[in-house]
Amino acid sequence: MSPDLLLARRDLAFLLHEWLEVTALCSRERYAEHSRDTFDAVLDLSAELAAEHFAPHNALSDAQEPQFDGESVTIVPEVGAAVRAFAEAGLLSAAMDEAVGGGQLPHVVQQACFAWFQAANVATSGYPMLTMANANLLLAHATPEQVARFVPPMLDGRWFGTMCLSEPQAGSSLADVATRAVRQPDGSFRLFGNKMWISGGDHELGENIVHLVLARVEGAPPGVKGLSLFATPKYVVDAAGGRGERNDVTLAGLNHKMGFRGTVNTVLNFGEGRHLPGGAPGAVGELVGEEGRGLAVMFHMMNEARIGVGAGAVALGYTGYLRALSYARERAQGRPLAGKDPAAPQVPIAEHADVRRMLLASKSYVEGGLALVLRAALLLDEQHTHPSPEARARAGALLDVLTPIVKSWPSQWCLAANDLAIQVHGGYGYTREYGVEQLYRDNRLNPIHEGTHGIQALDLLGRKLVQARGSGLQLLLEAVRETVERARGTGDAALASYADRVAAAADRFAAAVAAAWESGDPRTSLVNATTGLEAAGHVVIAWTWLDQLVAVGDREGAFYDGKRAAGRYFLTHELPKVGPMLDLLAGGDQLFNEVDPATF
Amino acid sequence: MSPDLLLARRDLAFLLHEWLEVTALCSRERYAEHSRDTFDAVLDLSAELAAEHFAPHNALSDAQEPQFDGESVTIVPEVGAAVRAFAEAGLLSAAMDEAVGGGQLPHVVQQACFAWFQAANVATSGYPMLTMANANLLLAHATPEQVARFVPPMLDGRWFGTMCLSEPQAGSSLADVATRAVRQPDGSFRLFGNKMWISGGDHELGENIVHLVLARVEGAPPGVKGLSLFATPKYVVDAAGGRGERNDVTLAGLNHKMGFRGTVNTVLNFGEGRHLPGGAPGAVGELVGEEGRGLAVMFHMMNEARIGVGAGAVALGYTGYLRALSYARERAQGRPLAGKDPAAPQVPIAEHADVRRMLLASKSYVEGGLALVLRAALLLDEQHTHPSPEARARAGALLDVLTPIVKSWPSQWCLAANDLAIQVHGGYGYTREYGVEQLYRDNRLNPIHEGTHGIQALDLLGRKLVQARGSGLQLLLEAVRETVERARGTGDAALASYADRVAAAADRFAAAVAAAWESGDPRTSLVNATTGLEAAGHVVIAWTWLDQLVAVGDREGAFYDGKRAAGRYFLTHELPKVGPMLDLLAGGDQLFNEVDPATF
Repeated sequence: MSPDLLLARRDLAFLLHEWLEVTALCSRERYAEHSRDTFDAVLDLSAELAAEHFAPHNALSDAQEPQFDGESVTIVPEVGAAVRAFAEAGLLSAAMDEAVGGGQLPHVVQQACFAWFQAANVATSGYPMLTMANANLLLAHATPEQVARFVPPMLDGRWFGTMCLSEPQAGSSLADVATRAVRQPDGSFRLFGNKMWISGGDHELGENIVHLVLARVEGAPPGVKGLSLFATPKYVVDAAGGRGERNDVTLAGLNHKMGFRGTVNTVLNFGEGRHLPGGAPGAVGELVGEEGRGLAVMFHMMNEARIGVGAGAVALGYTGYLRALSYARERAQGRPLAGKDPAAPQVPIAEHADVRRMLLASKSYVEGGLALVLRAALLLDEQHTHPSPEARARAGALLDVLTPIVKSWPSQWCLAANDLAIQVHGGYGYTREYGVEQLYRDNRLNPIHEGTHGIQALDLLGRKLVQARGSGLQLLLEAVRETVERARGTGDAALASYADRVAAAADRFAAAVAAAWESGDPRTSLVNATTGLEAAGHVVIAWTWLDQLVAVGDREGAFYDGKRAAGRYFLTHELPKVGPMLDLLAGGDQLFNEVDPATF
Repeated sequence: MSPDLLLARRDLAFLLHEWLEVTALCSRERYAEHSRDTFDAVLDLSAELAAEHFAPHNALSDAQEPQFDGESVTIVPEVGAAVRAFAEAGLLSAAMDEAVGGGQLPHVVQQACFAWFQAANVATSGYPMLTMANANLLLAHATPEQVARFVPPMLDGRWFGTMCLSEPQAGSSLADVATRAVRQPDGSFRLFGNKMWISGGDHELGENIVHLVLARVEGAPPGVKGLSLFATPKYVVDAAGGRGERNDVTLAGLNHKMGFRGTVNTVLNFGEGRHLPGGAPGAVGELVGEEGRGLAVMFHMMNEARIGVGAGAVALGYTGYLRALSYARERAQGRPLAGKDPAAPQVPIAEHADVRRMLLASKSYVEGGLALVLRAALLLDEQHTHPSPEARARAGALLDVLTPIVKSWPSQWCLAANDLAIQVHGGYGYTREYGVEQLYRDNRLNPIHEGTHGIQALDLLGRKLVQARGSGLQLLLEAVRETVERARGTGDAALASYADRVAAAADRFAAAVAAAWESGDPRTSLVNATTGLEAAGHVVIAWTWLDQLVAVGDREGAFYDGKRAAGRYFLTHELPKVGPMLDLLAGGDQLFNEVDPATF
């Protein structure tokens, strides 16, 4: 598959250079070795590797999903080859410190690079994504000695990483994690318990798999405060970092999914007694970070994973949109509504208003989503490298507010773009031959994992916006207002009118949040939280579109006309949808608290 | 699977007897042999047969889809057994005339009965559905001699039927059908051409397959006016109705789909020369109805099929909702927001506001959709059996207006219920083990076949509402106003307030349609037709809910409380969504005519 059907290189260039102006980062010490040229080179390399090694087996690893014969997991060999190509190109550590052999690429560029792989094959890209997130967590929270033993083989692509949070009785409710960690006389731990939904939990792609496991040290309090984090590899890692004997981590079975089939998803048992490392029961686990701080430490990985989920949702939506666009330009069907002469030749379906509606809606979703994801990634760079401590804190706080939106909005609307891509293809889109139905099935995971849509809503409306006397909401409003003022300052009448719409929506959103919280009671205030999350998402994407249109300015050319059309679509056809949502949020209707599901 | 997880028998009883009062039909001559008892008996039988013969192989025929080895098609044997059980129960002819051995069941009851089979296994139910629609078309348009030869073996379940409209270059654009019909000296025809997307196009489930084929008699004009309809069986049917030699209808291949996999979908070649019936080239076809009236005759089948599609979409949504409800009542996860004591036991997820939101939204979609479908089916009964000619005409005209909504609204919103059923199940919903993901995949066909969503929009906004000086729109408004007046007449304050909302939305809809058509130019007026269709659908379902709530009145009990909650949800959380849609429709924004997709 041509990279042109994965992502739009021209759009990436616009977003990174004309909109976010990321080369400005190169004046900072961490990025001093970089330039637009190095950024472009790694983007081009990513596009090429993704098209060459990831895209070709996307349908294959969907049709031939991982198999477990009771002993080991078989995955089509193309998956391993793709991951090796990714590792050999140095992409696993592209954004990491030079000290660990990393390339110190800004996160914003790394996110853009990785999106090529997600668009080409989101399931295969799951293996490097989890491994990178795992290594990042260890780099931030493990001891130097642990880092030295665990991280280098992961960054070489020889070992893989997972995150083990969920259990059969503890999915959204991590407070209920029951895996036990038993302290040994030497200070190490042995783990006993069952983990569910573990992506990449077992396979033969590499030499070892490092599981980061949430567990409760015996005697710790109930709830999330009693959780600690343990590095619990498939093969015990000795003091020198060598691969030792088989740890007591066993595969109980695979989950067979609607999509994302190439990413093996597992049920793992820890300490069930099938292996006895060191001759004693339990899986050998090493505490990572402080005891009792497991969830906080894991959130390092989870926040990164949530942005990664949003980016994956965007990438799937984006490639679906590009395929629909390409199909709509080629496929002849029907004639213009005025003067239907049946003897005249049929026209490409891109000529029909309803097909244009679907294409333009998709374009506004995927380009808006990509912009949001890249803005979030740039905030991560600002948080860590901005010269001003205030600016660093501010970037981190804004990223904190945006994270549930970055995770949830693309999971809803770039999934909608995949749905539209099926519809544009008509009957062909419903066949497995054209691949757009797989994109839909793959993307449907994203509103579920890494915190469901409803959990993101509680996070945004119950925490992020309102904690610290609403400073999160204020930060978001200030960021929106800054764009609004710049739009007004251009003197362009269309931009000024869009700015008015965005400002009004943001103000109404703030008022609705305040109204919803008037009671001060979480149960009452959060009853329409999901509606609030969805309204917030549309307001944020409207802001993002307005900001892109300011960068477009009065530049001429087809690309900029396309941006203006998509921006106009979002600001005039999509943004008005928040009206009824904000009425509901502000009105505080208590229907969902009042009904009794026993009557359903 | 228990029938209780397919459809709600109590809801059907409410809709048929308390709301539509269908036993009133029994006073008409055609239904004189019927009573509430006979209706209930066939509903119970349907529920039982669906649960026993259709539901158990639903996952199996999805996982093991039909295979073509180059000679014949293999389908898991459970499909044939299910269809035989359906036929043996007399259900193929349940609604047909006694003269052909039918049961003269009202369409409204037949539709309710068939919904059980669609909910249990929509793919297997496709075979009897197509066969019944085929037989109905022949009964209405074929000669008595043709009826005698073709119809009895179909109603016995020995022969099957299909509809062959689409071709590779003619999907939405039937004007471009290119299959040729060559007149023979004896007045019969030979057909040559390729048909695409033919459901049930080839299999070994019965002894013969009667294809109803749109083709163009040589010399006929281009466009839809040149089309005629031909009964073109897999095996030629002799003068006595016996199965003769193999006709030249050959299977070119199967389409492998996202869902609906148990219904074999085929590419058929007519007259390619693999068989030579009677020693001459071409597939033997018999003209059905008048020459040049093929599309009009086919619309007999297509209108019925469109209601069938809506009913199927409802059934899939309904069973998904019931499974989500059952899961949500059982699955414990998390605790109430107020006072999260981690030592307290977890609560069923049906206690959480966001889960209630998803359940209540789904309930409002599937019960609203079922009500609409049954109303449409009752209109069909009224159209054919009401004693007053004016009432018959009126029912037919209203059904005509509602048909695109009956087809499209459930295809969008009961599909949304399937999406919500996945979400309620969380990670489990994304696995193939729980079956709700299959329901989504199956239902995703419905916005595509039998006229896409966009085609329905053009039909509604471009024809049904505005033809005959807007009499279609007026009829719809009168029907809505009648319900509004009855709601106001109850003296119930909540009902009166809902009535105001519905009346206002209907009036705004009418004004928006008028505004959109101000220019008189179809290209300008229909640019936002899909938004108009979606607004119309929500207004119609709001009307349907108001009408149900009038029937609920002040009756007491859990069932009625549930109805009130779902109605309240739809009228206060869903209906407001039409506001921005109607602004767009009325405003007549020409974005989709103005943009150039070359800039995308």
